[in-house]
Amino acid sequence: MSLFTKIINGEIPSYKIFEDDLTFAFLDINPIQLGHTLIVPKIEIDHFLDLEEPYYSRVFHNAKIIGKAIHKATGFKRIGTIVAGFEVPHFHYHLIPINDMADLDPSQAKKKSQTEMLEIQKKIIDILNQG
Amino acid sequence: MSLFTKIINGEIPSYKIFEDDLTFAFLDINPIQLGHTLIVPKIEIDHFLDLEEPYYSRVFHNAKIIGKAIHKATGFKRIGTIVAGFEVPHFHYHLIPINDMADLDPSQAKKKSQTEMLEIQKKIIDILNQG
Repeated sequence: MSLFTKIINGEIPSYKIFEDDLTFAFLDINPIQLGHTLIVPKIEIDHFLDLEEPYYSRVFHNAKIIGKAIHKATGFKRIGTIVAGFEVPHFHYHLIPINDMADLDPSQAKKKSQTEMLEIQKKIIDILNQG
Repeated sequence: MSLFTKIINGEIPSYKIFEDDLTFAFLDINPIQLGHTLIVPKIEIDHFLDLEEPYYSRVFHNAKIIGKAIHKATGFKRIGTIVAGFEVPHFHYHLIPINDMADLDPSQAKKKSQTEMLEIQKKIIDILNQG
């Protein structure tokens, strides 16, 4: 079972942002920027090109909604995205607040305090709930 | 008019990979890896979060089809993707053949020979045409 399936199942705690029947979104525990979020399908597929419908479209559909909330919550210039997938063999779409290219550099990732994580989690969820 | 609109209109030449009514795909002229492709909507929207339907879904739908062809044509382990958008204010989705995280590093981008570009273009198009 992948790390992300354990997070989806609640066996491993996460800063959850959003969930529906096909997808789950949570804060990256090692964010490049505060608000950095991962969206994953509720099915263990490693390479995104192998992800079948309706999962595939739902991930990208939800990415837009969640991305807008992160954008508003963080105040960064835009949202950048990455699909890489070398660490966990369960497709995850990175949504990252960015002001310039350097903000997409994975080597900049580092843990934030629990207070900061809870604060940005609440802010993003509040914006999502306002629709 | 954006650089990419000029490419779509044929005013600036490109190594075209695919085109339909809503999207256009072509080789990045400064690829991180040979086969690095950009998919753009046929509408000038800077930030992908502002891209309306049916353009938005079509970009990601086509990305899967084109991504599979690039994957097969290049033989790399997987396809990575990036949305950044600081250079051209016209949303473009990067599809990049990758074997490890370093293959997503934009600082590795560099021009390839015309022969190499034409060869990979043909290979990707041939695979797309085989369906």
